[in-house]
Amino acid sequence: MHADTVSQERKRIVIIGGVACGMKAACRLRRRDPLADITVIEKGAFLSYGACGFPFYICGMVPDYKNLMDTPIGAVRDEAFFKNVKGVTALTRTAATRIDRHAKTVEVVHLETGKKENLSYDKLVLATGAVPFVPPLEGRDLRGVFSLWTMTEARAVKEFLSNTMVSQAAIVGGGLIGLEMAEALSKLGIQVSVIEKLEHIVPALLDKEYALLLTRYLESKGINIYTSDAVRKFSGSDTKMLTSLITEREEIPAQLALLSIGVRPDVTLAREAGLEIGQTGALKVTPNLQTSDPDIYAGGDCVENVHRLTRKAVYAPMGSTANKHGRVIADCIAGDDETFPGVLGTAIFKVFDYSVGRTGLSEQEAVKLGHEVMCAIVPAPDKPHFYEGARPIIIKLIAEKATGKLLGAQMVGPGDVAKRLEIAVTSLSHGGTVEELSKLDLAYAPPFAPAMDNIVTAANVLRNKLYGKSRGCSPLEVKEKLDHGDDFIFLDVRSPQEYEQMRIDHPAVKLMPLGKVRSEGQSLPMNKEIIVSCKSSLRAYEAQLMLQAQGFTNVRFMDGGILAWPFELKTGS
Amino acid sequence: MHADTVSQERKRIVIIGGVACGMKAACRLRRRDPLADITVIEKGAFLSYGACGFPFYICGMVPDYKNLMDTPIGAVRDEAFFKNVKGVTALTRTAATRIDRHAKTVEVVHLETGKKENLSYDKLVLATGAVPFVPPLEGRDLRGVFSLWTMTEARAVKEFLSNTMVSQAAIVGGGLIGLEMAEALSKLGIQVSVIEKLEHIVPALLDKEYALLLTRYLESKGINIYTSDAVRKFSGSDTKMLTSLITEREEIPAQLALLSIGVRPDVTLAREAGLEIGQTGALKVTPNLQTSDPDIYAGGDCVENVHRLTRKAVYAPMGSTANKHGRVIADCIAGDDETFPGVLGTAIFKVFDYSVGRTGLSEQEAVKLGHEVMCAIVPAPDKPHFYEGARPIIIKLIAEKATGKLLGAQMVGPGDVAKRLEIAVTSLSHGGTVEELSKLDLAYAPPFAPAMDNIVTAANVLRNKLYGKSRGCSPLEVKEKLDHGDDFIFLDVRSPQEYEQMRIDHPAVKLMPLGKVRSEGQSLPMNKEIIVSCKSSLRAYEAQLMLQAQGFTNVRFMDGGILAWPFELKTGS
Repeated sequence: MHADTVSQERKRIVIIGGVACGMKAACRLRRRDPLADITVIEKGAFLSYGACGFPFYICGMVPDYKNLMDTPIGAVRDEAFFKNVKGVTALTRTAATRIDRHAKTVEVVHLETGKKENLSYDKLVLATGAVPFVPPLEGRDLRGVFSLWTMTEARAVKEFLSNTMVSQAAIVGGGLIGLEMAEALSKLGIQVSVIEKLEHIVPALLDKEYALLLTRYLESKGINIYTSDAVRKFSGSDTKMLTSLITEREEIPAQLALLSIGVRPDVTLAREAGLEIGQTGALKVTPNLQTSDPDIYAGGDCVENVHRLTRKAVYAPMGSTANKHGRVIADCIAGDDETFPGVLGTAIFKVFDYSVGRTGLSEQEAVKLGHEVMCAIVPAPDKPHFYEGARPIIIKLIAEKATGKLLGAQMVGPGDVAKRLEIAVTSLSHGGTVEELSKLDLAYAPPFAPAMDNIVTAANVLRNKLYGKSRGCSPLEVKEKLDHGDDFIFLDVRSPQEYEQMRIDHPAVKLMPLGKVRSEGQSLPMNKEIIVSCKSSLRAYEAQLMLQAQGFTNVRFMDGGILAWPFELKTGS
Repeated sequence: MHADTVSQERKRIVIIGGVACGMKAACRLRRRDPLADITVIEKGAFLSYGACGFPFYICGMVPDYKNLMDTPIGAVRDEAFFKNVKGVTALTRTAATRIDRHAKTVEVVHLETGKKENLSYDKLVLATGAVPFVPPLEGRDLRGVFSLWTMTEARAVKEFLSNTMVSQAAIVGGGLIGLEMAEALSKLGIQVSVIEKLEHIVPALLDKEYALLLTRYLESKGINIYTSDAVRKFSGSDTKMLTSLITEREEIPAQLALLSIGVRPDVTLAREAGLEIGQTGALKVTPNLQTSDPDIYAGGDCVENVHRLTRKAVYAPMGSTANKHGRVIADCIAGDDETFPGVLGTAIFKVFDYSVGRTGLSEQEAVKLGHEVMCAIVPAPDKPHFYEGARPIIIKLIAEKATGKLLGAQMVGPGDVAKRLEIAVTSLSHGGTVEELSKLDLAYAPPFAPAMDNIVTAANVLRNKLYGKSRGCSPLEVKEKLDHGDDFIFLDVRSPQEYEQMRIDHPAVKLMPLGKVRSEGQSLPMNKEIIVSCKSSLRAYEAQLMLQAQGFTNVRFMDGGILAWPFELKTGS
């Protein structure tokens, strides 16, 4: 069978968007259908780049923007590469301006020449991505104010940094990308401020105590964090250069401001074509990733996804999801009944030496959805303490109280967070329980994990709570009790040496090392509430059991101990 | 309720074995039952140590053997610690010599004094562990010949190394612990040889091509590997010092020999007490970890486990499993119906810069069990290639052909193997399929993973094969065809530059870069079998599809490409 003899039967596929989902769909489709006529339209100048690599390009780790478009063997993914190697026609600087669903054509404009053209399709793929949200603030067009979403913008920021003396920068929006950029700029020797409108940073991903732990860490790295504050305007010099940001409470001097307050799905074309838009504002698609027009597929950052736990639509743009979408779309166009099962809202990022990850529902989200939840917060080294390079991580697990089903996980620390996060992701995907999690035959050797892996221990701590064998108290609740001056004993059962080194400084705190709780516990007042704390919460839990055995009925341990305490600690004597 | 008032009702618990399972059971039971009388009998001098840390103690990373018994805050876990902090009586240098199940007593001997004593129990826990297998070879008692299983042995080896000039060492047995020790000794500047009786190293864990990949790596690190060879005797000097090992084929000079040919469950006491021993030679236990006597529990290295996939009994001693056993036993004694679900045969180890992991069934095991399997071998960097420190890993997935169910995984390489292994472990535990694996919402950011994680790509490669969209050929089969002089075209579709750098040197190899396959493929003979290879197998797979589209019907790609080729490669021109 020769290509020429069947040219009239060739499927014509037009794909709008040539970064992640679009290019994946194109290449996969070429492999599935060697004869199809595949055209990718990309309004930008660049194809198939790793937008998640921008912070590493800005800070200089990635020396050239072209590295973000290389294949692993160093070939640049440009139009010629896609033509010669992949057999795909890719048109850059070409914008799709109108879809005629009746005629099955897409009107495109070649941006360099202004020339218009109509492309016919049998199947159309929308991979139009997202656009950064830009608030309509005064001074938005000053030099030094940037969004950072496309390769063109990334190159513009890089150029600005090399041509301009930037000693202070502000990141507007304390989300994942904002924090990655904060680190990148800080590594260039720039003093960085982060401004977040909501009560804590990373509000879409992390529970409050995790955001506060991260805030404390970032502040220790010299980043200024302003929360519950919003930018009112950008101030500039006579030469139209940014000089400061005026917020509701501050004036923050900055020569560079990066807007990182989220993105919106780019659905203009789809909306104009009458395709159904979901409640999230993104395109609604079937599990086969078909839009409301069965000849039009859509994937990547312009569509909404089903949350695998709640079955509700969510907008969770991710490069990893976009690539998976591209593959599903290609397989469906090739005739398979391939489906995309949805997302868990998994996210991970690295700032300085900390890794931060989350998946499933946060405690806050779970409560809002009506779940009665129970959580555990468990800090521990990620390897046996005797092994070189063991570093702590703090795992929070969130479970449904009645069923013991895992609902979500959050993790932070300098240790190996990613591995434990993927265990939680895989468990959640299979509807796993905390008990199942605690009994996984995980891989043990000292270079990789303690004999009881951190997530196994965290699951066991949570099982103790779920089964009523222990009673915990979140650090947020303890902080509230301390602030309100509640009458309780905050019993620290660490050694006097540990206490001297680092402690929560409050009159309610009483030191009684664990070794004495068994013998001297009776000296504590029976009628007062006792909350026990230690370094990680293991000794506090043991003390709780000892005190209960001595007849105390109102004892709890503080989740996560000093290591997970997200507020100020006093060090030294 | 005061402890004294109920002393006559106190449960008496005797635990034989004070390392992993035994001590975990004791401490957990103390937390579950504040009143129980808990006595641990340990015939060795040390309690609760991390035996998996011995290689790191031998090589000097762990400076003191006591570090292997510390708690994370530096308290040594000795008899006083267990008494004061945990409320557990631990007797070291005390051997259990007889169990009287009728009288419910254990006869013990205090080894220092020779004094005998009978301990009564309500519940007895056997955590007697394992003993290293020592072959009855001539010269076994020469100075310099050691097993390395207990802390006492580890200290003896360490002392021997500091008192004796050891320039050459031999490891008898090429399993996981043997290889860890090979690295430890090599780091001390010692020339190390490993002698393995079977056809390849790590025979109990790895498929042949993985063992060969590892062999090539270890040889590049200066380790001598002898396979299909067995030690006949140890030769010594007049002063009874080891001088060499005589094998079936070699004389290997060595001043130190470590026997690492496996361990046997220590079931002497249990057998004498008439408890049921399983087919594996280890103690048979119920899911509650009860032996055939319901008042006697057993866990850790002396019991057999159910394999979670095959439901067959296996002997798979592991520190991680022993700890989990201890917790289940304590909970059952405390009155819960707690169960242990079995193991997957998960194992991981690090040698030099390579991590090596496996879980579930190997291809060989699966075939032996009658499964019709399909495998994929997929090498790729563990992070986007543009990210600093991206390092390759090679993932092998093994699936059941008819159902697409994942059966096992093997992974090797300098990159982050552990994370992907845990994903496979969790998936296998939930009966996951390769399709489910390919659609997990794993955590993506450049410091942690490529947008399509390695295991997602591996799952997709395997799905292509399972659904007949591609046809692979294992490197072992290719090697056989080359060795037998089969008439086929071994088409290398990499660039000429890559070919010059490194290639399989054989007359059957023909170079045709992928970019030319579409246009020049027709020049290949239609009637010959074609096997396509490239660096990782992605381009080879694309070439296979291109050639099929041109009418070729007998084309396969070689699994894993050059990166996973476990035999010799020619470098340079």
